[in-house]
Amino acid sequence: MHSLVKLYDIETRPPSLGDNTGDLDRLKKVLSGYLRGRNPVVPFHRIAPVAKAFRQSGFKGCAAVIHYPDGPRLVDFFARAPEVLLGMALDLGTTHLEASLTDLLSGRVLARNTVENGQLEFGTDILTRIHFAANKVGIQTGLDLLHERVMTSIHSLALELTKEIRMKTSQIMALCVSGNTTMVHFFLKQDPYHLCREPYIPVVNGPDPFSASELNLELHPAAIVWVMPSIGSYFGGDLISGILASSLDRQEKTCMLIDVGTNAEVVVGNRDWLIACAGAAGPALEGGVARMGMRAEKGAIEHCTIDPESGEINYQTIGSTPARGICGSGVIDLVAGLYLARIIDIRGKFRPEQPQADGKLIQQGESLAYVVVPGEESGLGEPILLSQVDIDALMRSKAAMYSILATITNQVGVSFHDLHKIYVAGAFGKHISPRQAIVLGMLPDLPLEVYNPLGNSSLAGAELMLTDGSVRERCREVVAKVTYVELNVNQEFMIRFSGSRFIPHTDHTLFPSVPFYSDHE
Amino acid sequence: MHSLVKLYDIETRPPSLGDNTGDLDRLKKVLSGYLRGRNPVVPFHRIAPVAKAFRQSGFKGCAAVIHYPDGPRLVDFFARAPEVLLGMALDLGTTHLEASLTDLLSGRVLARNTVENGQLEFGTDILTRIHFAANKVGIQTGLDLLHERVMTSIHSLALELTKEIRMKTSQIMALCVSGNTTMVHFFLKQDPYHLCREPYIPVVNGPDPFSASELNLELHPAAIVWVMPSIGSYFGGDLISGILASSLDRQEKTCMLIDVGTNAEVVVGNRDWLIACAGAAGPALEGGVARMGMRAEKGAIEHCTIDPESGEINYQTIGSTPARGICGSGVIDLVAGLYLARIIDIRGKFRPEQPQADGKLIQQGESLAYVVVPGEESGLGEPILLSQVDIDALMRSKAAMYSILATITNQVGVSFHDLHKIYVAGAFGKHISPRQAIVLGMLPDLPLEVYNPLGNSSLAGAELMLTDGSVRERCREVVAKVTYVELNVNQEFMIRFSGSRFIPHTDHTLFPSVPFYSDHE
Repeated sequence: MHSLVKLYDIETRPPSLGDNTGDLDRLKKVLSGYLRGRNPVVPFHRIAPVAKAFRQSGFKGCAAVIHYPDGPRLVDFFARAPEVLLGMALDLGTTHLEASLTDLLSGRVLARNTVENGQLEFGTDILTRIHFAANKVGIQTGLDLLHERVMTSIHSLALELTKEIRMKTSQIMALCVSGNTTMVHFFLKQDPYHLCREPYIPVVNGPDPFSASELNLELHPAAIVWVMPSIGSYFGGDLISGILASSLDRQEKTCMLIDVGTNAEVVVGNRDWLIACAGAAGPALEGGVARMGMRAEKGAIEHCTIDPESGEINYQTIGSTPARGICGSGVIDLVAGLYLARIIDIRGKFRPEQPQADGKLIQQGESLAYVVVPGEESGLGEPILLSQVDIDALMRSKAAMYSILATITNQVGVSFHDLHKIYVAGAFGKHISPRQAIVLGMLPDLPLEVYNPLGNSSLAGAELMLTDGSVRERCREVVAKVTYVELNVNQEFMIRFSGSRFIPHTDHTLFPSVPFYSDHE
Repeated sequence: MHSLVKLYDIETRPPSLGDNTGDLDRLKKVLSGYLRGRNPVVPFHRIAPVAKAFRQSGFKGCAAVIHYPDGPRLVDFFARAPEVLLGMALDLGTTHLEASLTDLLSGRVLARNTVENGQLEFGTDILTRIHFAANKVGIQTGLDLLHERVMTSIHSLALELTKEIRMKTSQIMALCVSGNTTMVHFFLKQDPYHLCREPYIPVVNGPDPFSASELNLELHPAAIVWVMPSIGSYFGGDLISGILASSLDRQEKTCMLIDVGTNAEVVVGNRDWLIACAGAAGPALEGGVARMGMRAEKGAIEHCTIDPESGEINYQTIGSTPARGICGSGVIDLVAGLYLARIIDIRGKFRPEQPQADGKLIQQGESLAYVVVPGEESGLGEPILLSQVDIDALMRSKAAMYSILATITNQVGVSFHDLHKIYVAGAFGKHISPRQAIVLGMLPDLPLEVYNPLGNSSLAGAELMLTDGSVRERCREVVAKVTYVELNVNQEFMIRFSGSRFIPHTDHTLFPSVPFYSDHE
C-alpha cells in the first residue's frame, strides 16, 4: 500500500548553539532521509503551523507528508501518531454524490454515504445546467451558484461521514474526486460552455492536484485534492475510475466496461489497448423519462415478470414497500415481459388485440398505457402506468446502447463472442437483469456469466487512488492509452441505430436465444 | 542566462472532433516538448485564466513558465510575446528597503529605488522589533503590524519602480527577497521569538519558493517569491547574496567578505570551503549611536582629515551641503585623525593637554566633547560634536570588528596576509577609507588594494538569482557548504576583544604601518 498521505516517525536532537538549523529545516532534513534524499516542499501557509507543532512536541513525533506527483509535501506534524488518517473518495454524480472515508494507514473503508446533488434545482440534466451556468444571477453567475451548490453538498457529506466515526472534517487529509467531465468543471468552477458545443472541448482534462484551501474546501487546510482525469467531454474521470476498479487495463483477455447514466459510456480493451466511446443513451435507463420512472430507491419496482400465457404480472419493489414507480431495471424487465407475452410487437407498439393484454391497457390521451400496478395496490393512491411514450423512449435508449456496443467492437475488429467479461457499472449494473436486456436486444446475446455487476466503480476507483500508488501510475497510463471514438458524428453508429430499433433487432440471427415474433404471425 | 521565468512560443492546431484534448492539456502537451518532456504544473487559480487566454488567442501565442526547484509551472499565456518580463529584486534592510526591476528576457536592470522601512516606528533596531512582535495591539499582534508595514513598504517600492518604466505591478512575475533572518521572518509573518534567545533558532532558514498570492503580494498573482536562505539567526540571506555577488564561493585563492550593519558578518573561504561568523559590532558603524551620528545621507560628514601638526580639521559632506551629522565612515576618519594628532590616546580618551586640542574640546556634562563643526558652520544651527561616549562606542565596535576577523581567520588557520581580496559590502564598504580603519586597528594592516567595496551585495545577489540558474544552483551549494561559527559564546573571541580595545592594538607589531604612541611619551 502506498497511500497519498503518509506518516513518518521523527526523532531529532533539539537545536543547540552547535547545531542552529531552523526548526523547519531540521525537520525537513530528517524527513529527507525517509524520502530517498528528496527534500519535501512545505506549502507557504503550512510553515508556521508545522514548525510550531514540531517545536511544541519537543522536536519529536510524527510528520504527515502528502505525495504529490511532482514530489513530497510536508503538511503537518503530530506529537503522537494519529491512529487513523482520513482520505475521502467522492463520486460526483449528476443526481447524487456518493462518498466514503478510508483510513489511509490501513486502507480500510470506514464510512460511506450519499446525498442528493444540490444542483438539481438548476436542472436535472447536465445540458440544462451547462446552459444555466452562463446566466447572470444578481452579481453571481450561474456557474458560481452551481459551484456553490456542489460544494455545499460535498461539505454536508464530509460532515455526516466524519460524524459517523466521531472525527472532524479538518482531519480529512486527501480527497479524490471522480465524476463526469461537466460535474468536474462545476466542482473546479471552470466554464463548461464548450463542453456541449462541437468539437466538445473541456477547459481541462487532468487538473494538477491542488490544496483544499485553494478551493475553500473545509477539510484539512493542506489536504490534497486529486481529480480523476477525463479524456473528453463525454468521457469523464468516473469512467477512468471504472477502468481502474475493473482492472480492464490489466486483463489478458479482451473485456468490456459499460457505464450507463444519461450517457452510455463503453470501453473495450485489455492490458495492451483500450478503446472507448460514449453516446447519449437517453435518460430512460435512469428512470428519468417514464412518467412513473424513478431512481432505484425504496418503493421502486426493481424487477418484474409477466406470464407469457396468462399475462399475469409479478413484481418486486426495493424495500418490499408498496410500489411508487419503476426504476430502469424494472422498465427493462417490464418491456421484455410485454414483448414475450406479445402485448407489444417488435417495434415496441401495443397490440391491444392480444388476449394477454385484456383489461391491462387503458386509454391515455391519444395513446394506450399498460397498467403495471392498479391504483388500489399502489403506494401513490393512483395506478402506475407504462405509456407508449415511455416504451418509445426505452426503445431509443436500448437501440442507442446496442449500437454503441456494436460500433465500438466493430471499430477494433472484435466480435461480442470474443469478450471475456462485460463489467456493468453503477446502479444500472447492480439492478439490471442481463437476460431481460438481451431479450430487448439492448445487450448482446451472450452467456449470462459474461455479465458482471461492478457497483459504484467511480467511487471504487477514487478509493483505490487514495491508497494505491500503483493505481495512480496506472491512471496516468490509462489516460495515455485510451483511444476515444466520437460517436456524435459517427456514420456507422447512425446506421446501426436504425437497425436496432426493433426487439430484439432487425437481424434476429444476432439474438438466437430470443424468440422472434414476426408481425405477420 | 536562465531566468526564473521564461517565455515559450506556442503554435498548436485548434481542437477538432478527431483531437478533443482539453484546452489546458493541449497547451501543456506542446510545452512539455520545450521542457525535456516534463509536464508543467498549473497552479489551481491559474487554470481558468491560462486556458481562457490560450483559447482567445486562437491556440497560439506565448506561454509564461516559472521554473520552480521542483519543476516548471505554467502561469500565464499571451497572444503576443511581451517585450519585457519583469522580475523584482529586493534587499530587505532593517532601516531601508532597496529594490530593482530586471528584465528577465534581457537580464537588464531597468530601475532601482529605495524606501524607508515602514517598521521603523516600532523600533530602529531588530531587537526592539522582535520584542514588539510579541505584543498584542488591539486584535492584532505586533507581528501582524510589523508584517503589514513591511508589505506596505514593498508595495510602494513596487509601485514607484513600475511607474518609472510605465508598467504595472501586476506585470512583475518574480520577486527575489534578500534580507537578514529577522526581516525575513517579518516578511513571511513568522514568529521571531526564538531568534534572539539562545540557541538562536529561526523558524525557517530556507522557505520553499511560493506564489505571490499566498502572501497577498500585489504582483502578478502567480509571481514566484523566492527568499534567499539564511544559515542562522545572525547569518541571513543578505550575506548569502553577498557570497554569490562577490563569487567568494568560486575563488581559487582565499578571500574574505565583510558586511557591517548592526552586526558584523564575515565569511572567509574559497571554492573549496567557506566559514562564516557574525557578531554584534555595535551600531556605531551605522552612525546609529553617536549623538550626531546619522546614515550616509545628504549632509553627513563622510570623510575628514585632521592635520597632525596644527590639529586643523577638514571635512566633506555628502552632497557638499552644510554638515548635519556624521556617518560611520566620517566617525572612523575622525577618530583616526584624533589619534594621529594625539588628541586622543591609545585607549581613545581625550588628551586635553595636547596643543592640537586647544579650543577644540568643550565640557559636556561630566566629560569632554570634540567640536567637529562649530555652530555657525553647521546645517543644524548648533555645533556638531563627538563626545567621549561616542568614541567609547566606536572603540567597542572597532574592537569587536577586529576580534571577529582575527577569530575567524585563526579558526581556519589562515593569516590575514593569506587573504587575496577583502570584499566590503554595503554602505560601509562604499564610504569607508580602509586606511583610517587600519589606523584604528579595526581592519587588518594590509595593502589598500586588498580592500574592495562591493556595493549593495544583498540586492546584487537577489538580482543574480532572478536571471541566472547557475547562481541558484550555487546558492544551494553555498548553504550546504558554509560552516557557521557562533561567536556569542566563543571564548577566543572574548579574549581577543580585550586586546583589541586599544588603538591600533595592544600588540602594535600587528599594525606596522600605524604610528604607535606610548602613553609614557
